[in-house]
Amino acid sequence: MSLILLGSTGSIGSNTLKVAKEFGIPIEVLGAGRNIALLNQQIKAFSPKAVIIQNANDKDQLKSNGARIYIGENGLKEAIFNSDSKILLNAISGGNGLKASIFAQQANKTIALANKESLVSAGWLFDTTKIIPVDSEHFSLWYLLRNQNIEHISSLIITASGGAFRDMPLEDIANKTKKDALKHPNWNMGDKITVDSASMINKLFELLEAHWLFNSKNPHLKLDAIIERSSNVHALIGHTDGSFSAHLSYPDMRLAIAYALDLIKAEQISLIPPLDLKNLFKIKFEEIDYKRYPVWSLKSNLLRNPKLGVILNAANEILTDAFLNNRIPFGHIATEIIESIQAYETKCLAIQNFEDVLNLDLEIKAYIKQKLA
Amino acid sequence: MSLILLGSTGSIGSNTLKVAKEFGIPIEVLGAGRNIALLNQQIKAFSPKAVIIQNANDKDQLKSNGARIYIGENGLKEAIFNSDSKILLNAISGGNGLKASIFAQQANKTIALANKESLVSAGWLFDTTKIIPVDSEHFSLWYLLRNQNIEHISSLIITASGGAFRDMPLEDIANKTKKDALKHPNWNMGDKITVDSASMINKLFELLEAHWLFNSKNPHLKLDAIIERSSNVHALIGHTDGSFSAHLSYPDMRLAIAYALDLIKAEQISLIPPLDLKNLFKIKFEEIDYKRYPVWSLKSNLLRNPKLGVILNAANEILTDAFLNNRIPFGHIATEIIESIQAYETKCLAIQNFEDVLNLDLEIKAYIKQKLA
Repeated sequence: MSLILLGSTGSIGSNTLKVAKEFGIPIEVLGAGRNIALLNQQIKAFSPKAVIIQNANDKDQLKSNGARIYIGENGLKEAIFNSDSKILLNAISGGNGLKASIFAQQANKTIALANKESLVSAGWLFDTTKIIPVDSEHFSLWYLLRNQNIEHISSLIITASGGAFRDMPLEDIANKTKKDALKHPNWNMGDKITVDSASMINKLFELLEAHWLFNSKNPHLKLDAIIERSSNVHALIGHTDGSFSAHLSYPDMRLAIAYALDLIKAEQISLIPPLDLKNLFKIKFEEIDYKRYPVWSLKSNLLRNPKLGVILNAANEILTDAFLNNRIPFGHIATEIIESIQAYETKCLAIQNFEDVLNLDLEIKAYIKQKLA
Repeated sequence: MSLILLGSTGSIGSNTLKVAKEFGIPIEVLGAGRNIALLNQQIKAFSPKAVIIQNANDKDQLKSNGARIYIGENGLKEAIFNSDSKILLNAISGGNGLKASIFAQQANKTIALANKESLVSAGWLFDTTKIIPVDSEHFSLWYLLRNQNIEHISSLIITASGGAFRDMPLEDIANKTKKDALKHPNWNMGDKITVDSASMINKLFELLEAHWLFNSKNPHLKLDAIIERSSNVHALIGHTDGSFSAHLSYPDMRLAIAYALDLIKAEQISLIPPLDLKNLFKIKFEEIDYKRYPVWSLKSNLLRNPKLGVILNAANEILTDAFLNNRIPFGHIATEIIESIQAYETKCLAIQNFEDVLNLDLEIKAYIKQKLA
């Protein structure tokens, strides 16, 4: 077996390479964005047969070490179709990740999916039996649901840290700036996802992903999210009998990655430190309050009409970018997203295929940009 | 299907009748101790074919409603052998419960086991494939282990409330009396088990039960207990991969009873209120400190030599009784148990069969009584 790894220079990409090394899995294809320096190191260490980069201008700096070089979207598609690997780990962040997932599905690859946009924007267009979730919450749901009779499960609950503003006085949140929003209480991540965590949009994304992964074929399952500040409990499943099972571990992406790459090996060794139960912080489950996280008021509508994820994702991308460039205060992200859903709801519910998704995505982004101009 | 219920007038017995009624399971045999008034009500409500009472003197008060009456130990054995039911729920408290389990095994019944003495004193003599545990901790372990590959499980952890003295200054505990020990922080139980909870002996019993139920055939499993004050987390299993699964529910015996009586029905309906995650107390796992619970220093030895449960159980029965009669202070229970283990360890490890167990049990009880005289 071998692996196609897209988004290799990000945090998940780097962790994937660690796991692949530990498991002795060859990397057939490495794909990265514009961090060519790190990509060169990875090429040296893993000797892939092919490399994909985003931008032709970066080709000169690339030390391909004999690997075939592919460039841009066409290169991405070609590289995927030319590869022998049966599994593609998609850790591309943002909208480009959706295209990678589409190509992977067309090429009949199993997708180990860390890219959120794929399912949020186009969940109904994927065969989720060929998708393995690579993030803590969905991995833990999958882990808890293994060998369970889904008929006797009543709810799927994912946890949220609560983000940078979980203890901020409510009246102060709307005016907060980039500097405040990037102070995540539990860990360092990329800027966008840290803001998505502060706004709770990230958890709406994850509920939509959970819908497509688990709920679309089992509509009796109630989906919800709750705040658990320590981030040691990743998910719970509610049993029909009134009890719950919970999955706990230190937050470490290698666990989900290991299971995606090689389930048999992942079960047999401990890549991550075993949880020290006696030294954990207190575990408390708290409701997600829409007064603190205004986008949470969209939850029911999104779960009833999960195609609306296209709007959520497109609007949020532009708004978060504007926020990170200090062009709008924090509160505007939620306000504008809620307005966008209202403006595009009818149109969005009528879309059918990938082309529709991509077109609507562009239209909404243009609409938001124009509003902010 | 029908049921033999022994110990029907206790708390587990009463809850079993509630579940049997809900599930429409006929009661073939009802067995009780000396609470004839309640037994008469149960006979009226459930019309058993046979009734077992402990003492011939109580026969006059019994309103058997046409049921055949059995008396004492011989009656117990005869009733079990004469019954058609394939399942026997043993909720007898104390040493009499061991005999009931022996008879049930001899008669090839499946034992739904709430009696602790059976496995604590004679675990190696039972076919545990025909035992279904009926208490929260072992039920939750069973629940979590269902459909798991035991090779990839590394530890089994049960929880303890910490009992009446969990927050008492250490130096005060040894001199405490009955009145203090019976103030259990979480619920009302019988006097003996409440004291066993304060001393943590109850959790040593449960570790021994867990050993015979799960560990004796899988010695790689590490057994342990931790304090979880809310009693909403009953057990956890540690996976080889470093993560844990936990089972949570409101503490309600009907859940374990329901699964013991009819697994198919138990999975499909919620007999107990679903856990309201957002309104739980904080969950914190705390080490069991042998300075607060001196018997905890016996844990490793007991798990290495689980036959020593005979001594633990026999000595504790007499000592707890003496404590409840205000004849010894609380601290003496632990001191005398630790001494008894030392005195009888060699002899105990050599015993073989049920008769040996019963004889040693009597010998140790006489030894303790003599020491206290």
